[in-house]
Amino acid sequence: MTKIVQTELESYYYHYPAGATIVTTHSNGRDNAMAVAWHTAISRDTPIYLVSISPKRFTHKLLVESGEFTVNFMSMDSGPLVGQIAGCSGADIDKFAELGIKSQPGSQVKAAVLDGAQAAYECKVVGQHTYGDHDAFLGEIVAVQWEPSAFSSDASLDLDAVKPILYLGEDYYTSTTGTVEHKRDLPARTV
Amino acid sequence: MTKIVQTELESYYYHYPAGATIVTTHSNGRDNAMAVAWHTAISRDTPIYLVSISPKRFTHKLLVESGEFTVNFMSMDSGPLVGQIAGCSGADIDKFAELGIKSQPGSQVKAAVLDGAQAAYECKVVGQHTYGDHDAFLGEIVAVQWEPSAFSSDASLDLDAVKPILYLGEDYYTSTTGTVEHKRDLPARTV
Repeated sequence: MTKIVQTELESYYYHYPAGATIVTTHSNGRDNAMAVAWHTAISRDTPIYLVSISPKRFTHKLLVESGEFTVNFMSMDSGPLVGQIAGCSGADIDKFAELGIKSQPGSQVKAAVLDGAQAAYECKVVGQHTYGDHDAFLGEIVAVQWEPSAFSSDASLDLDAVKPILYLGEDYYTSTTGTVEHKRDLPARTV
Repeated sequence: MTKIVQTELESYYYHYPAGATIVTTHSNGRDNAMAVAWHTAISRDTPIYLVSISPKRFTHKLLVESGEFTVNFMSMDSGPLVGQIAGCSGADIDKFAELGIKSQPGSQVKAAVLDGAQAAYECKVVGQHTYGDHDAFLGEIVAVQWEPSAFSSDASLDLDAVKPILYLGEDYYTSTTGTVEHKRDLPARTV
């Protein structure tokens, strides 16, 4: 196959699926929730998680005020809710009330952990860096919450029990097939 | 459901699937490839992509020397190769030669673009931040390469044509089901 080489990059971020997470914030008695596909683990020891948030977002304001957030890993069952959360701003409405989002406050932070998440990370901001049109927020993970029914005995995600939701751009989503194993074996050397 | 709350976080990063990308580097005539699941877009304008790499990795050395990398988005067809790339270090062997990795140099960087990738980002490092046991490298995306057969006319990934590979921790991987749409509509207000 011959690849197309593109240097005009206006649609560059539709090339791979990424977990459609819900990031929550809490400041001055106000909760908000935002759909975020730009996120990743950064470090294991100390455990650090990153979310990239535009300064235009209401979540950005609450994040800067509170220095806390949670990342909620959702399933396909929550797809309609994820779409709704993506479709409105906390500057306009109380999403938790209007969308009927069920949640509990975090154990170590005031930001909410969603009932529908198979796992959630509670984070305290330890760094913020502006790159381009977004701010990368680095959060130390101070607690993990997880549904035991969604994980196997070795702590890996049980894809027979849960169907994680992944974002494809625009209003498109997908989920996962079964688990396969690819061993770290090297091929037999021919020399 | 009642979640387990965990503050001992040694296995915190097995809670969600993330794209199993191959990050390549090139320095002083030497190519390397590394399997990386900790990566994300950060900014759209300027386009910036992040990869998180341990200083223990050979890729880290080549990244610091060259200031360039590519991120290759792979399919399940490449699963055995991804496992092999994850299973060895470029400090010990020439992975491209030993594993038979087919590639071309990037159009804007010397780091390789893999033939088996449905898309690849060519990046030049514009930032590096140490958090915990990893370094986050921020790369400006200077070119995107993509296989036209893997994408729909609206530039979204065509999941009938390509099965992206996702990482689940340890040696476990999964792929995607079909595409579903979740509109950003709000529910009808009851008041």
